[in-house]
Amino acid sequence: MQFQPQSADQRGVQALEWCGDSLRILDQRYLPEETLWIECRDAVSVAEAIRDGVLQGAASVGIAAAYGIALAARHIGQAADWPQTLSADFALLAAARPSAEHLGWALRMLQDRLRRPLGVAADVPALLAEAAIAIHTSDDEANRAMAKLGAQVIRRHDRQPQALLTFGHGSALGVIRAAHDAGLVSRVDVCASYPGNAGAIPHLELSQNDLPAVLHADAAVAHLMKVANPSWVVVGAERIAGNGDVVNTIGTYGLAVLAMHHGLRFMVVASSASIDLELETADDIELGDVLAGQGGQPLFDVTPADLIDVIVTEKGIVERPDQARLAGLLSPRRLH
Amino acid sequence: MQFQPQSADQRGVQALEWCGDSLRILDQRYLPEETLWIECRDAVSVAEAIRDGVLQGAASVGIAAAYGIALAARHIGQAADWPQTLSADFALLAAARPSAEHLGWALRMLQDRLRRPLGVAADVPALLAEAAIAIHTSDDEANRAMAKLGAQVIRRHDRQPQALLTFGHGSALGVIRAAHDAGLVSRVDVCASYPGNAGAIPHLELSQNDLPAVLHADAAVAHLMKVANPSWVVVGAERIAGNGDVVNTIGTYGLAVLAMHHGLRFMVVASSASIDLELETADDIELGDVLAGQGGQPLFDVTPADLIDVIVTEKGIVERPDQARLAGLLSPRRLH
Repeated sequence: MQFQPQSADQRGVQALEWCGDSLRILDQRYLPEETLWIECRDAVSVAEAIRDGVLQGAASVGIAAAYGIALAARHIGQAADWPQTLSADFALLAAARPSAEHLGWALRMLQDRLRRPLGVAADVPALLAEAAIAIHTSDDEANRAMAKLGAQVIRRHDRQPQALLTFGHGSALGVIRAAHDAGLVSRVDVCASYPGNAGAIPHLELSQNDLPAVLHADAAVAHLMKVANPSWVVVGAERIAGNGDVVNTIGTYGLAVLAMHHGLRFMVVASSASIDLELETADDIELGDVLAGQGGQPLFDVTPADLIDVIVTEKGIVERPDQARLAGLLSPRRLH
Repeated sequence: MQFQPQSADQRGVQALEWCGDSLRILDQRYLPEETLWIECRDAVSVAEAIRDGVLQGAASVGIAAAYGIALAARHIGQAADWPQTLSADFALLAAARPSAEHLGWALRMLQDRLRRPLGVAADVPALLAEAAIAIHTSDDEANRAMAKLGAQVIRRHDRQPQALLTFGHGSALGVIRAAHDAGLVSRVDVCASYPGNAGAIPHLELSQNDLPAVLHADAAVAHLMKVANPSWVVVGAERIAGNGDVVNTIGTYGLAVLAMHHGLRFMVVASSASIDLELETADDIELGDVLAGQGGQPLFDVTPADLIDVIVTEKGIVERPDQARLAGLLSPRRLH
């Protein structure tokens, strides 16, 4: 059983491929120079790939972890108490990137599946693989929904072709592609986001889609905002706190401050699974534990909600995010 | 005749060594991994080294250019009309880094020397070498004066050990060393300033002087300002316009905006030779011609005067710089 989402709008770099007995992960550390695939056959190797930064987008980390649990179950085959038997694998994957709310969410989805009645003769490894594929598919659908909503927000403010600035992945790039399809994009400036040169991948993706994308050093961003005058900064999110604070790749906070100074609008694009209502504000995150990478250099930072103009999720948009508005978005009683 | 300034406070990386018939330049592109020296025997090779970014500090560029003229004169030996004979060498060196006001200033000093009576039997190459050495020596003296004044400014605001943030060279680091000697520094954060990783050299210099220096990616600067709470950002200047606008290494402008947002003070340290009163505001500089490097990526940006708390020169300090205050600093009628 092989799986890769094949939607009409699938134009990004496909980073994950489920092969039934293994998960293939595109190693994003060596792009665009080299296209290397890592083949994972168990939860340990998936956790290792996540921890080592093989994957960059927060959503892809959650999908990979779900497949990791499916792989772990294949090695067990039969168990009386599945949640107990897989608990070490769940813990290992959860610890691989604690900042990523989407990772925790995906693992909770698989735990929920295990808590539902399984039936005596159930093929649990196959059920878990199905659940992981469902997460993968719904992520693709969410990306298309967010792309459409984000482009609508951009159009609502200005119907002319305009410059956009990003260093995001997946969901943020989907918005930029959709805006480009709608004739709203004159150019895209991509920040390199050292260390790790994360911006090289969005730049590659956008260029492959014939978008007029230019890659810049982080140090040039303020100057760029002054001279290129982009209308929007579009980024993703690792985790969104209940009040709208956003944890994301290091550099996001500085972009938001500079955007405010230059009068640019700031858009965060992330699936609703990234919203953590239990985290009141992002300042409650243990910065040292969760945000720092190896060597103590921070990998993530916190952008306070008051620097964010709009959060775009697959469930809808939240302008000038605050606790009430985010809770309203996630409420099951929501009408639209 | 060999020359390197040997002052009591000479603790930076010595990047230039005059050997009488050649100029040795420490190649700053490969520091700190490799210590390579380039030996220049004529103006062409000095201009090439400046253009290729072998030297990073703006003041060292001016000194190297002065030695470049001295080397050019050695190849000529005798001339009836020295300014005319050397005019191509002057033009070549001036064009090697047009953003650097100190470079233009140093070349004007050598032109002035040639316009003074030379005497029939004068050894002009030796006179020009003396003039270049005088510039080199006075730069060293200026650095010591600026270091003292800058540290005084820091102490005036806070007598406690405090965190400082920089990605500067020469003059800016002199202030940080002097402040450290005065017990005013608890830690120094250095921005990497990609591309070119310019920050690696200040980091190396500071670490060699037992300063508690930490090197950071540019993308981490805003986060760092929030969590490490430095009191001052200390940078250098490539050129200072008459109104106090500062042209400097790309990234300076963003640092200044972020510093203002976080309530940090912003100090520019540069010799008075960097002040260009004829340039009314730095926006008058042709950005495309002067500020962009190869491939069109900007190497310099403009920090407006209203983001700068103080400019420190060897002639004195200018707080909240504007046209009147800078003109006053350079006025020969100045009393102190």
